[in-house]
Amino acid sequence: MQSFKNIGLIGRLGSAKVVETLKRLIRFLDDAGYHVIVEDRTASALLERGHAEASRRMLGELCDLVIVVGGDGSLLGAARTLCRSGTLVLGVNRGRLGFLTDISPDELEARVGEVLAGQYEVEQRFLLDAELYRGDSLVGSGDALNEVVLHPGKAVRMIEFELFIDGQFVYSQRSDGLIIATPTGSTAYAMSGGGPIMHPKLDVVTLVPMFPHTLSSRPIVIDAGCEIRCHIGETNQTYPHISCDGQTRAVAKPDDVLVIRRKPQNVQLVHPLGHNFYDVLRSKLGWSNRLGD
Amino acid sequence: MQSFKNIGLIGRLGSAKVVETLKRLIRFLDDAGYHVIVEDRTASALLERGHAEASRRMLGELCDLVIVVGGDGSLLGAARTLCRSGTLVLGVNRGRLGFLTDISPDELEARVGEVLAGQYEVEQRFLLDAELYRGDSLVGSGDALNEVVLHPGKAVRMIEFELFIDGQFVYSQRSDGLIIATPTGSTAYAMSGGGPIMHPKLDVVTLVPMFPHTLSSRPIVIDAGCEIRCHIGETNQTYPHISCDGQTRAVAKPDDVLVIRRKPQNVQLVHPLGHNFYDVLRSKLGWSNRLGD
Amino acid sequence: MQSFKNIGLIGRLGSAKVVETLKRLIRFLDDAGYHVIVEDRTASALLERGHAEASRRMLGELCDLVIVVGGDGSLLGAARTLCRSGTLVLGVNRGRLGFLTDISPDELEARVGEVLAGQYEVEQRFLLDAELYRGDSLVGSGDALNEVVLHPGKAVRMIEFELFIDGQFVYSQRSDGLIIATPTGSTAYAMSGGGPIMHPKLDVVTLVPMFPHTLSSRPIVIDAGCEIRCHIGETNQTYPHISCDGQTRAVAKPDDVLVIRRKPQNVQLVHPLGHNFYDVLRSKLGWSNRLGD
Amino acid sequence: MQSFKNIGLIGRLGSAKVVETLKRLIRFLDDAGYHVIVEDRTASALLERGHAEASRRMLGELCDLVIVVGGDGSLLGAARTLCRSGTLVLGVNRGRLGFLTDISPDELEARVGEVLAGQYEVEQRFLLDAELYRGDSLVGSGDALNEVVLHPGKAVRMIEFELFIDGQFVYSQRSDGLIIATPTGSTAYAMSGGGPIMHPKLDVVTLVPMFPHTLSSRPIVIDAGCEIRCHIGETNQTYPHISCDGQTRAVAKPDDVLVIRRKPQNVQLVHPLGHNFYDVLRSKLGWSNRLGD
Repeated sequence: MQSFKNIGLIGRLGSAKVVETLKRLIRFLDDAGYHVIVEDRTASALLERGHAEASRRMLGELCDLVIVVGGDGSLLGAARTLCRSGTLVLGVNRGRLGFLTDISPDELEARVGEVLAGQYEVEQRFLLDAELYRGDSLVGSGDALNEVVLHPGKAVRMIEFELFIDGQFVYSQRSDGLIIATPTGSTAYAMSGGGPIMHPKLDVVTLVPMFPHTLSSRPIVIDAGCEIRCHIGETNQTYPHISCDGQTRAVAKPDDVLVIRRKPQNVQLVHPLGHNFYDVLRSKLGWSNRLGD
Repeated sequence: MQSFKNIGLIGRLGSAKVVETLKRLIRFLDDAGYHVIVEDRTASALLERGHAEASRRMLGELCDLVIVVGGDGSLLGAARTLCRSGTLVLGVNRGRLGFLTDISPDELEARVGEVLAGQYEVEQRFLLDAELYRGDSLVGSGDALNEVVLHPGKAVRMIEFELFIDGQFVYSQRSDGLIIATPTGSTAYAMSGGGPIMHPKLDVVTLVPMFPHTLSSRPIVIDAGCEIRCHIGETNQTYPHISCDGQTRAVAKPDDVLVIRRKPQNVQLVHPLGHNFYDVLRSKLGWSNRLGD
Repeated sequence: MQSFKNIGLIGRLGSAKVVETLKRLIRFLDDAGYHVIVEDRTASALLERGHAEASRRMLGELCDLVIVVGGDGSLLGAARTLCRSGTLVLGVNRGRLGFLTDISPDELEARVGEVLAGQYEVEQRFLLDAELYRGDSLVGSGDALNEVVLHPGKAVRMIEFELFIDGQFVYSQRSDGLIIATPTGSTAYAMSGGGPIMHPKLDVVTLVPMFPHTLSSRPIVIDAGCEIRCHIGETNQTYPHISCDGQTRAVAKPDDVLVIRRKPQNVQLVHPLGHNFYDVLRSKLGWSNRLGD
Repeated sequence: MQSFKNIGLIGRLGSAKVVETLKRLIRFLDDAGYHVIVEDRTASALLERGHAEASRRMLGELCDLVIVVGGDGSLLGAARTLCRSGTLVLGVNRGRLGFLTDISPDELEARVGEVLAGQYEVEQRFLLDAELYRGDSLVGSGDALNEVVLHPGKAVRMIEFELFIDGQFVYSQRSDGLIIATPTGSTAYAMSGGGPIMHPKLDVVTLVPMFPHTLSSRPIVIDAGCEIRCHIGETNQTYPHISCDGQTRAVAKPDDVLVIRRKPQNVQLVHPLGHNFYDVLRSKLGWSNRLGD
């Protein structure tokens, strides 16, 4: 376990609760003698200045640990940047318990203190790289910790595409689109579409068809090392969008090819010791506790 | 059973097969001494003129029976217009068997002949009226034989809305939208979303949540006479679209109210005698035939 | 609204809480001058005797209103008997809120008092009659307020059967069985199997295939007046069971025919005024309340 | 690639078509100079004797390759025995294309010839070991290539159990049971229950709840190396059955513990070169072929 020196802070903008937690966190870290660097956009929301500031990307270069205060959405954004430098990332949730932000504000100092004292575990979470090709040219790209979605972009219009996995033809499909989700994303959008929950340790990806025209379509789970290729049908009447973690990254034309691969770098997610995926699942999904409870 | 005199013809544009079937149909009807009126847009695709022409709406006023050649989509469009005049509608499919267009071209003369000889049954199919209100003003409307869909319009963005049925609060929901489908539409888009198949004779409507955030959301079946009201959440970040039978009819702003009611007029759908909903289902969905077959 | 005189009481056996509620109820009814008749089996659990006793069936003949204390299961049992005499039935739940037993013990006197004062509404709920035929002989029967289930009886073995609705062949199916549910039952077992929620006022029935071999199988909603006939396959290797509201009523042999029809008599379910199906749904299924709450 | 000498034959009993294919196969192998050993039960169905015979288990010890003629079910049975000796297994299907038996009779000699000439690939498929404990005593066990199922055994009765994965509590559940399926079994029973398709190369297992009482229950995918433990509830009113590949192997009492682990030995499944999982999926599930076909 490494000992920390430079600690970065990122907060979700526009929330008074997040500001309050950030201030508590800064005080706690200052008192403990750590060097705190605040993300520049977060700093401007804090009003009280006086700490070092840096861009999100520089934060990754400078810090041993970055703490993100917000929801799972805030952590998704930070993680996509910080995976490049391999920086450790810790999430503090504001509001509801998150799958990724598992320290709650009322135990802030205790749990962050544990982590700083070396009482933590690091979980590797992989991301997906999405690239859109038109002929030989790369015309768009994005990366995702949760999921890449191919969808009609607007209206209720079916997309027609062919799916290939590692070069093998799988099926052609007419549907509202396709969700390609990591285990991290398997408890997010993909789950609303009927995809399975996949343990975060697994190196797999699920492909979930959205409102497929063929009723026998089913979610498929494949190795995350596979290359996934969606060939947009030539006769498509829509320009399908490609979104990564909920944000549109590219718009496809007929005959374009979307290629999805596992990103070489992982996010290094930090948890206090004793973190348990199933506890979070149970709490988030309202599953039943021990019999007799 | 009424005897027919004026017969209208509508065809899907842009298909050589449809033109061929229309010509056969015109010859057959001419020979039998009926007065044929061709929809004006259809007539321009036929090239050979010489028959009376009229707009789709006039066709409803002038004809005892309108025959639509195309797919289910063509019939949906014609039905929305022809329900106003209560004109009988008969569907001839080109290509695959349809749920609504159940006469196939190879038995064209025989089956149409039966209908003209009075060997037919009329099935009432109801439609939905959708109206979008901003405060007290009506800002958009449409009608649908299959389904009304409230959806984000673009991107993968959740909508937040409250649902009321006959004034009773049902739930607030965060999802990709809501499908409100008739029995006719229950075998179309709503089925891809997990909705139940509903027998076309029933006077019911199903509400199918699309990718709901709450996993316990389920399709609901209610009386078609109910008033369905969706109150778009005030804090929505998207402008949800309202589409009817797949075509966008209105775009909502936060705090708008979408009201859906059964249309007073029905479509009068004509079938040759012996038509059987379950036969069509089995054929379209690939269900198994008699044991031992 | 009729005024009540003779009031019957039925309680779920084996629960101290039910006994306590029954005693409170007896005291309340005695004080108010009603003539209380206790179901004989319930009476033996109460220990303190001194009230008239009668069999469940006689209770139906003698009483204007029967109050059932327990869960939805207790009310199902009572309703199957009491529908014959058309007696009004009111449910008091012990433990969790039920779909059928909607008076909670902490508002017992207030709510029952309202009903006795004529402040109530009566909801008609229909039941299903199931009959099993071997050739021309009736070899078993049962009735159900929730659902009739055709299932393998034991082990994980597929059943093969043909389904007919009003004499029309629907499909042959290989599956773990078929659930035929009323609207009342649509929120019970059928819902776990993916069936739709159906408003209790509707006169419809849903057929939900259980683990069907054919992936395109879907729940169907049909008119409750239809005759449903399941022809057990001749080559079946299992003896499928027929259960009604969770209790086995008959065991089928190959070539047997199961016939299901709406029962001529309804249950007369009493609710305090203001009862709302959607409120119960929301509470039982954890659906979201008003936005902003 | 090894060269073969002793080749074992197993056929599904009671099918004239299987007998015919076996005879063709024996002739082909005799002519090519291989030493054929027929499973003893299969031999008695063949009538024409004259070849060496051995029990299924001995076949594993004596042969380099065992060819199974029948359906996927026949191969499942043979595979459970032959995994102990690590013998190569090749499946020839009679009737419909199987997921495991992928040589069809009309290309019998050509495809088997290819395999014998070394033109094949070997796919490892793992199995599951199921053990039922009462206190410290092992009271039943079985192994499965497709799935282990915990189910009520009879009637429509919920089971109550607690699930632990690698000692971590996951949930308690009231349902009709739980399917624990391998990738091989993911296209069989588990798929009817809504489980995902998992590529056969993956070292994962899916847990699919059957008709769960909690609507937010979802299939979970976990590492196949995990220990899965189901603790049968103490207050259960049924004696749940444990079945492996469709056959009951043990009956549980309240408080029993079912433990499921990956079997140390794999089945060595032989395919002709060019075998493609997605081709089989498409064919079996009726998925669409290339656009424009």
